[in-house]
Amino acid sequence: MNKMVENIPYDELVVGQRTELVHTATEEDVKLFAAASGDTNPAHLDAEYAATTQFKQVIVHGMFSAGLISTAIGTQLPGIGTIYLGQDLQFRRPVYIGDTLTVSITVLEKNDDKKWVTLETLVTNQKGEKVVTGKANVMPPTQKIERTLPNIPQVNFVD
Amino acid sequence: MNKMVENIPYDELVVGQRTELVHTATEEDVKLFAAASGDTNPAHLDAEYAATTQFKQVIVHGMFSAGLISTAIGTQLPGIGTIYLGQDLQFRRPVYIGDTLTVSITVLEKNDDKKWVTLETLVTNQKGEKVVTGKANVMPPTQKIERTLPNIPQVNFVD
Repeated sequence: MNKMVENIPYDELVVGQRTELVHTATEEDVKLFAAASGDTNPAHLDAEYAATTQFKQVIVHGMFSAGLISTAIGTQLPGIGTIYLGQDLQFRRPVYIGDTLTVSITVLEKNDDKKWVTLETLVTNQKGEKVVTGKANVMPPTQKIERTLPNIPQVNFVD
Repeated sequence: MNKMVENIPYDELVVGQRTELVHTATEEDVKLFAAASGDTNPAHLDAEYAATTQFKQVIVHGMFSAGLISTAIGTQLPGIGTIYLGQDLQFRRPVYIGDTLTVSITVLEKNDDKKWVTLETLVTNQKGEKVVTGKANVMPPTQKIERTLPNIPQVNFVD
């Protein structure tokens, strides 16, 4: 499971540089996100309630997609050592269980005075529809780091 | 554990209306958020690596605070039935394990044409320092809903 990663320091970043992260949202993801955030909104956890909403079924937390964006920034581009300064998010479409999300992070702009970069942060679904759009401002690392990522903590649900 | 909640439909919302959610961040929160998002950035999970960073210790995922904001919006103000349209986040200070976060959601503006509201979304720590600032745009529910929230899913970590 352990993944060796290499970050991309400010000086190596190029406008247009891009990374992707692909993840299929599961019911377990939704339950785990509810456990992690305390967000037990029935729109995410209660199928009976969700059937009465305009979406007709449970939807994945919007901040789950934001979590994937943060994962792609913090482990891929620019990667380890990046300081997250800001993020704006437009939630454009619901995400359903079973949707395959592609998170694309693209370097939009470098600010050589502040050593900040602006990233486009886009999440699309398996139909190519934009589900989350937005931009992030980050302070990329100054030093090259190669490192094995910690394992994803494994959990069991308690009934 | 089950909590009965009542939402606040658009017509009942008043500019200046406010809710709070208080949560102390634990090491388990960080592990759970890593499990939920796949974000295993060592800044959050690897104490040895974190000691080499400017923060000198592990920091809580920025999107964990964003998750608490979403929880407060989706379960308190305006509550169940709210559609999340957008959120901007400025990460102003690190959050450390043991920090007590207060999420404040305040109605800033009502748009009677679109039936949207703009919310101020502020997260402060136990010192009163702003750790996350920003605004959210949401479409509040049109109907009153009183409902018992689902339980927070309980998990065990597998070593």
